Amino acid sequence: MKRAFSGLALVALTAVAALPLAAHAQFAKVEDAIKYRQSALSLMGAHMGRVGAVVKGQRPYDKAAVEADVTIIEMMSRLPWSAFPPGSDANTKAKPEIWSDQEKFQAASEKMQAEVQKLSAASRTGDLAQIRTAFGAVGQSCKACHDNFRNR
Amino acid sequence: MKRAFSGLALVALTAVAALPLAAHAQFAKVEDAIKYRQSALSLMGAHMGRVGAVVKGQRPYDKAAVEADVTIIEMMSRLPWSAFPPGSDANTKAKPEIWSDQEKFQAASEKMQAEVQKLSAASRTGDLAQIRTAFGAVGQSCKACHDNFRNR
Repeated sequence: MKRAFSGLALVALTAVAALPLAAHAQFAKVEDAIKYRQSALSLMGAHMGRVGAVVKGQRPYDKAAVEADVTIIEMMSRLPWSAFPPGSDANTKAKPEIWSDQEKFQAASEKMQAEVQKLSAASRTGDLAQIRTAFGAVGQSCKACHDNFRNR
Repeated sequence: MKRAFSGLALVALTAVAALPLAAHAQFAKVEDAIKYRQSALSLMGAHMGRVGAVVKGQRPYDKAAVEADVTIIEMMSRLPWSAFPPGSDANTKAKPEIWSDQEKFQAASEKMQAEVQKLSAASRTGDLAQIRTAFGAVGQSCKACHDNFRNR
């Protein structure tokens, strides 16, 4: 079963990559959208934390484990952006600038996804120094977006 | 960038498939584990809902979109099981049977993952009738596990 999953994931992942950026109609309620984006970003954060422990030397480097973490980070990096419908800022840390400066927000989300792609490539080299550099750039892209678009 | 992601995801997905079933040490606090598993199951539920709308005829069938949904469902179906450390039942709907009958719980989780694999295969056929059947079986496996291991 595992082989079938791995061997045929290519086509489906292409489909994930082709998901529209804004598909607000997917969410019946703003609460659903909020929960969705928070879940994706939370999983992304959890796996960033695991890779972070490796690049900081707190955990031994295991190429397969880091690749697995980064695969999850990569999928999660694509998901949140359809889940910011207008009006979904209540009771969240989302800043109004997400909706008032959508172009900048979209650029920030694309920057992060591009850095994650580089981390993905680095994870396949097996070179921890490259992973460390790419990981740092992803972290910077997370921070830049949070600074501008998320309340503390 | 998208091509690079799609073309090279194979190896990394194999690595995801090889993640250990129980890796409790990944979570510093039980709260982190609870948030992690809830996030994965929540995303799985959201995408099951999207496929559900298609199989119920509430949304037109789009092969690529369903495959994308199922790819996310498939990845999410693997993640929650490392995130049930002992003591992580407080303030959740998790029943004590998760820990007192671990063998049954593991079997239920494996049943669900196996049904998701079948849904994944069905999604690639482009045959909505096959997708509907496989979707129903996944839903049954969700329900069976919830009935036994989750409070309402």
